[in-house]
Amino acid sequence: MNYRELSLKKHGDWKGKIETVCRVPVDSREALSLAYTPGVAEPCMAIHNDVEKSFELTRRWNTVPVITDGTAVLGLGDIGPEAGMPVMEGKCALFKAYGNVDAYPICIGTKDTEDIIKTVKLMAGSFGGINLEDISAPRCFEIETRLKQELDIPVFHDDQHGTAIVSAAALLNALKLADKKIDEIKLVINGAGAAGIAIAKFLLKLGVKNIIMCDLKGIVCKGCDWLNPAQKEVAEITNLQQIKGTLSDAMKGADVFIGVSGPNCVSKEMVRSMADKNILFTCANPVPEIAPADAKDAGAFIVGTGSSEYPNQINNVLVFPGLFRGALDVRAKTVNTEMMIAAAKGIAEYVSDNQLSTDYILPYAYDKNAHRAVAKAVAEAAVSTGVSKLKR
Amino acid sequence: MNYRELSLKKHGDWKGKIETVCRVPVDSREALSLAYTPGVAEPCMAIHNDVEKSFELTRRWNTVPVITDGTAVLGLGDIGPEAGMPVMEGKCALFKAYGNVDAYPICIGTKDTEDIIKTVKLMAGSFGGINLEDISAPRCFEIETRLKQELDIPVFHDDQHGTAIVSAAALLNALKLADKKIDEIKLVINGAGAAGIAIAKFLLKLGVKNIIMCDLKGIVCKGCDWLNPAQKEVAEITNLQQIKGTLSDAMKGADVFIGVSGPNCVSKEMVRSMADKNILFTCANPVPEIAPADAKDAGAFIVGTGSSEYPNQINNVLVFPGLFRGALDVRAKTVNTEMMIAAAKGIAEYVSDNQLSTDYILPYAYDKNAHRAVAKAVAEAAVSTGVSKLKR
Repeated sequence: MNYRELSLKKHGDWKGKIETVCRVPVDSREALSLAYTPGVAEPCMAIHNDVEKSFELTRRWNTVPVITDGTAVLGLGDIGPEAGMPVMEGKCALFKAYGNVDAYPICIGTKDTEDIIKTVKLMAGSFGGINLEDISAPRCFEIETRLKQELDIPVFHDDQHGTAIVSAAALLNALKLADKKIDEIKLVINGAGAAGIAIAKFLLKLGVKNIIMCDLKGIVCKGCDWLNPAQKEVAEITNLQQIKGTLSDAMKGADVFIGVSGPNCVSKEMVRSMADKNILFTCANPVPEIAPADAKDAGAFIVGTGSSEYPNQINNVLVFPGLFRGALDVRAKTVNTEMMIAAAKGIAEYVSDNQLSTDYILPYAYDKNAHRAVAKAVAEAAVSTGVSKLKR
Repeated sequence: MNYRELSLKKHGDWKGKIETVCRVPVDSREALSLAYTPGVAEPCMAIHNDVEKSFELTRRWNTVPVITDGTAVLGLGDIGPEAGMPVMEGKCALFKAYGNVDAYPICIGTKDTEDIIKTVKLMAGSFGGINLEDISAPRCFEIETRLKQELDIPVFHDDQHGTAIVSAAALLNALKLADKKIDEIKLVINGAGAAGIAIAKFLLKLGVKNIIMCDLKGIVCKGCDWLNPAQKEVAEITNLQQIKGTLSDAMKGADVFIGVSGPNCVSKEMVRSMADKNILFTCANPVPEIAPADAKDAGAFIVGTGSSEYPNQINNVLVFPGLFRGALDVRAKTVNTEMMIAAAKGIAEYVSDNQLSTDYILPYAYDKNAHRAVAKAVAEAAVSTGVSKLKR
């Protein structure tokens, strides 16, 4: 039985990867009158008088829905809301195991941007934060942007920013090993979708100057006639020399390749054309842009993938549990850039110089202390940038 | 400290009455590749190919949201969605403790009927059933009716039907003690809101013939100019002699009084005017229609209230955990009348003839075996009426 067959069997045995438990006594008349009626009227009225108290008197402070419309699930594409649920439940399991966040999976049966925004807004009063997941571009941009504007709890589209943060963390450590400066590298991103664009924008904020983005039709360049609005926006801030051509042209002399695209689109030849001590993060799932062995064979200095089967797994599971833990701990009203940078640096710095090697640039996803380090860094950034609503 | 102050303090200590837990191993690379990526792709595709598999491969089969708009919370009225959350969380805690149902509280930040219906419909793919709670009349009728029509999972407005079922169970046992036949009694219901109307409709189905409903303006009678549409409907099927007048007129010679109204609207005089071996269920919360001691003093044979402070607590907590447990166990596609009657009889019959007394007509809410009995009865009724979607 291969791992996919085994996973299917396990899901059938488990019948759910998360569960709700009762945290209070309800086994006597007295217990019921405190946890339930009539005593419960008092916390209700306390919240009625001050909505902020919902973060103190209910589980709201620790609760985050993992919301999808099922349109961009893993590499499987638009498989429908219910079909996305095993992934959402998996995220919820990881939220709890790594971040002690109480997460629920919620799939939404529409692809209409406005309907998704409205649905999430209408139930936001139940939650301490919102995790958006596997919603396809370009709708995901509008949905996240609007919800961030209109809600006063953290809203985070994991596919964009989780991917960007973990890629940045991997890059910071890889550059340390390659002994290259972040503002001097040439970096190519293949895949100008939600993840690729988020990575580009985030790395620019971290100090990368020279980024070239590619998509199926070639290098993203100002004035290309095939760009969608999000790509047009990123064309303004990347590829400053306005190079045109294919991925293979882009990769010549590049120090770093980050792939969030599809299987087998990078050849050994393209790897050989890169600069010395080159770094490749081939994150396409389940089949990477080039097999790690082939990349190494073609002289790659550091290779990371999205998969747990190879060293250097670059997976956003390193990000979201700690990021929300930190944000919830200080009742952050949003997730800002400083918090995301703190998360990236928190992940990178968790790997000590002694541990750091070309086969270990990131902590293991299941290392709980790594998530604690992320949470601490994010909480501190939230407080120092004034977005914590905790009274101090 | 009284119980309300103590409840507030406890809620502050608890910081949430429920919690999500992770049910699967995620502590190694291998574990992650089964519970999460890449293995999770396989259950996703299985659901994509057959949505019904979402009931086997995720927690959907056991998951029910407790949904409110915060407009009719306890006796507190329209206190806002977030302020309803302590009650919803309490329900979720009881769902788990008594029915092993995984329930989440979800408050919806609108009072618009269509928006509530749409929001619930859009997220229904995440759930095995829908529990509506504390939504004010008349919107609750339309919301439940439409959701029942448009979804193929059980939808249950607890304030209507939970109250009706537990009142019916109490009535069945009280009539046994009074040695009266259900089709011969005169029964008065005070409070022609959602709960009162649901009780009337349900008791008619159970065999009561002579029901008189009252509201603040008096007896509900065909042609009264103050009736809302729901009351007009119930005027057609109750008060067949078309009696007019006040609550005090209605109660003369009545065998049973059921109050789902407000505090202190029943006098000792009114109790004395009732028939021999009279039964009063004074369910107004937190202050009943007449204090139990006063009712007894005026000769009441059996008194029940909504509160846990007196004998014979008539609370729908006896209904919803077992009803959903039974419905979920057989993948019922709806909650039909037969299932509700089974629940009422299941509760009533759980009290053996040996145990039955004027101070013990219903099981204790915290008696887990009572909930199991309800679940069994409901599941059997679902199967025998053909609404179970389980393959057999």
